Amino acid sequence: MDILDIITSRRSIRKFEERKVSEDLLEKVLEAGRWAPSGLNNQPWRFAVIRDKKIREEMSGLTHYSRVVKAADILIAVFMDSASGYHRVKDAQSIGACMQNMLLEAHALGLGAVWLGEIIKSDVQIRQLLGLGAELELMAVMALGHPAESLGPTTRKAMKDLIVYRN
Amino acid sequence: MDILDIITSRRSIRKFEERKVSEDLLEKVLEAGRWAPSGLNNQPWRFAVIRDKKIREEMSGLTHYSRVVKAADILIAVFMDSASGYHRVKDAQSIGACMQNMLLEAHALGLGAVWLGEIIKSDVQIRQLLGLGAELELMAVMALGHPAESLGPTTRKAMKDLIVYRN
Repeated sequence: MDILDIITSRRSIRKFEERKVSEDLLEKVLEAGRWAPSGLNNQPWRFAVIRDKKIREEMSGLTHYSRVVKAADILIAVFMDSASGYHRVKDAQSIGACMQNMLLEAHALGLGAVWLGEIIKSDVQIRQLLGLGAELELMAVMALGHPAESLGPTTRKAMKDLIVYRN
Repeated sequence: MDILDIITSRRSIRKFEERKVSEDLLEKVLEAGRWAPSGLNNQPWRFAVIRDKKIREEMSGLTHYSRVVKAADILIAVFMDSASGYHRVKDAQSIGACMQNMLLEAHALGLGAVWLGEIIKSDVQIRQLLGLGAELELMAVMALGHPAESLGPTTRKAMKDLIVYRN
């Protein structure tokens, strides 16, 4: 099974149907995140799963992308657990791998999702809202739902501009 | 197509056959990396592709994991281009997503690979060895080859220990 089609056809989805994402599909997305690789296998990711509309309303005031936060059926906020961390850059990388696993799985399941990064500026307020301690640091939020838009192909830099050395 | 099987069955492979990885398969792995998501779509990753045995020998002296570096058919060193960067933690996350795309694609193709992180301590020496400038920062190295070991299932933390909030 070649997953390159899943990887290259995935798009950031920002419009969602009102239809709920089933618990079964949500679990598969989280499960994909759980299986990410990490340095020393430290698994520094922690998940906050937010379906509640009121909480999403409050979170929507903490980001420029309030429309997406309100429209999504589910938000998965990914935190880094400082007690599990060992190297800031490597821990951030592994959380990126965790996010990508969830985005790919969501796409493979026919769901739509987008990786929200700007919202991490509101780390403190979001932790307060969710009642979480300072040992957790907000690293990214995934907005998830049934897609209400279908986007065509996008582009990336050409490979020749990415290869800096080859022998 | 559910890719959860690919995600959960992937293992870190550190023993490789002497057999070469074809250019065709290598291109697919790099292509998977090229399609990673990034903040503002800034695509900060740059790739150094190292097949040359002498260069790998020299690199093997710069890491605790010299055996893996020597045994792999190909090393893909992933650098962050500082001119493309905009936020250190988010850029590191996107490079983690890029690495994970390549690891998943390698596994899907029947190749073996491992993400090497410890080696980035030798950033300066590796850049010198490859003749690369200080605008590039070594973020990770992937060792790639045809697997000479078959590893059974591994484990991760239980989901209940990863969920810090749910409603």
